[in-house]
Amino acid sequence: MQKENSAPTMKDVAKEAGVALGTVSKVVNGLPVGDSYRIRVEEAIQKLNYQVNSYAQGLKANRTYTVALLIPNTIDPFYAALTYHINVALLKRKYRMLLCTTDFDPKQEQEYILMAQHNKVDGIIGLTYNPRLIVEENTPFVAIDRSMGPRIPCVACDNFAGGQLAAEKLADLGCKNVAFLRTGSALVNEPNKRKVGFETGCLSRGLSYEMKILDDADSFSEFETFLSDHIVDGKIIFDGIFCVTDRLSCHVLKVLRGLHQRVPEDVQLIGFDGIRSFGSMDYYCSTIVQPVPEMAEMCVELLLRENLLAKPPLVCLPVTYAFGGTTLDGNAGDGC
Amino acid sequence: MQKENSAPTMKDVAKEAGVALGTVSKVVNGLPVGDSYRIRVEEAIQKLNYQVNSYAQGLKANRTYTVALLIPNTIDPFYAALTYHINVALLKRKYRMLLCTTDFDPKQEQEYILMAQHNKVDGIIGLTYNPRLIVEENTPFVAIDRSMGPRIPCVACDNFAGGQLAAEKLADLGCKNVAFLRTGSALVNEPNKRKVGFETGCLSRGLSYEMKILDDADSFSEFETFLSDHIVDGKIIFDGIFCVTDRLSCHVLKVLRGLHQRVPEDVQLIGFDGIRSFGSMDYYCSTIVQPVPEMAEMCVELLLRENLLAKPPLVCLPVTYAFGGTTLDGNAGDGC
Repeated sequence: MQKENSAPTMKDVAKEAGVALGTVSKVVNGLPVGDSYRIRVEEAIQKLNYQVNSYAQGLKANRTYTVALLIPNTIDPFYAALTYHINVALLKRKYRMLLCTTDFDPKQEQEYILMAQHNKVDGIIGLTYNPRLIVEENTPFVAIDRSMGPRIPCVACDNFAGGQLAAEKLADLGCKNVAFLRTGSALVNEPNKRKVGFETGCLSRGLSYEMKILDDADSFSEFETFLSDHIVDGKIIFDGIFCVTDRLSCHVLKVLRGLHQRVPEDVQLIGFDGIRSFGSMDYYCSTIVQPVPEMAEMCVELLLRENLLAKPPLVCLPVTYAFGGTTLDGNAGDGC
Repeated sequence: MQKENSAPTMKDVAKEAGVALGTVSKVVNGLPVGDSYRIRVEEAIQKLNYQVNSYAQGLKANRTYTVALLIPNTIDPFYAALTYHINVALLKRKYRMLLCTTDFDPKQEQEYILMAQHNKVDGIIGLTYNPRLIVEENTPFVAIDRSMGPRIPCVACDNFAGGQLAAEKLADLGCKNVAFLRTGSALVNEPNKRKVGFETGCLSRGLSYEMKILDDADSFSEFETFLSDHIVDGKIIFDGIFCVTDRLSCHVLKVLRGLHQRVPEDVQLIGFDGIRSFGSMDYYCSTIVQPVPEMAEMCVELLLRENLLAKPPLVCLPVTYAFGGTTLDGNAGDGC
């Protein structure tokens, strides 16, 4: 029974659940225990309204219950959504989050890692661009979208499957002659697999395809030249275009309109990411949706997992397709 | 002169600048000193590449060099931009930021404040919705968009001037009969001044106006009824509409298109906030732009200012107007 007028302790939980104190400790700290034990402990925790005291725990276990997130910014909607969902996943576990926005600066990224290690965070989650990033072995690290070696788990969506899905969707919607437009980091990273996935999908469905790949993230202008070079007798020769991001897709939509091509009637357009305007309204375009809440949850789960053997080097989470007005599978009034 | 092979100290900076050690300390800690002294110290800091050691400073001064930000989420683009710029302003000063997303939950807000105080943050910046939020006197707090009493500085954009500017802009663009549409928190807050500012602008420029004000942030549907009730012989009687946010403005744009009204030819539309698609591309609509980087800088500046007398209860920063395709003052191709 819980004592009157005092907060329930771990001992009270053990008594209520009829298990050993060590079992409660394991559940509270996310260590593996049998399912039936875990359920009994969780029910007792709920019944007694037992609150894990993170601060006291920190003093005891030499933990800070603080995790640093390294991310370029929170202005790009994909980064903004990741930041939010990682924050929620951490706070749910009574962990605090240090936010470190890096502006894509490799030096800044390394500095924040040193700062984070200096201040003894329990771990770091990073979406970084520094190919030579040095992370001390004793600081748990989870990388987003880029493999950093076998000891560091990487979480991404299934970019290959996403590219393949885009090609299959365009084939299902009647396209025969498609294009893939890409701009982005020249670093080896997971999003680059969208290209090979798309090629695989095109080959398996018999679509003829062209690729236009730029490495500089800021120079969208060459796409306009590429697209106008493919207009014959006033009509674009592609009937489907897959853009590597929704951001690029929105730019291409404007370019196509400027070239008097109708979307989706003349050419259908699929982007990638699943960004919605104002964060929660319409999709900007028809798109392959990244499972951001699940990716965030997985980052936190892997970071805090104590069993190192259970940390896989790469976790790819499933993507889905969503209609957003730039394809022929929905109401023309939707999308931007 | 700086010693070889060791990081420069505050003493080295004082020697280089030719000032007392206390003067360097004041500059480093943001305390007031004469401009000529401050410049000499800053030049010496730059020349010697002196790095303030926050962690050692923290131990010495009983500071944590950590600030908590309470904000509903980072998914809404306005909150996302605020979070980013506050993060940058803090990191620039070698302060770390604990991010606490609250999802508008008053209980959650109070809990995070307790947590922040427990973990001895040096201060809290909060965009909160709990009208009964309790903040301990010894924790510096800066509120965004809502006055919380004379001891707590509030930072906002000049919402009154923004409303007035919207009315004046519509008048300049030839409007005679305008409407104001609002939804939002029923709490007394700074954004509510957009309404009185707009009324003032309408009165001074002789515009006739109607208001439709809803309190529930989620029920945009009543606006559709309001707008269709004001269509006479297939044409809307308003020639200008001011929406309290860009988000609402984008919704109204869709509603108007559904009602076969042309924007901006039949009716011009101005929103508020200055949100850009994907965080940095086009404005969604013609809009009154909040100075987010300046607001972020001001929040941090006021929070860390030690001279309590220099903390004003309310700071309103100037807004500007930006064309975004939904008014008659630009190229029709711009905007969404």
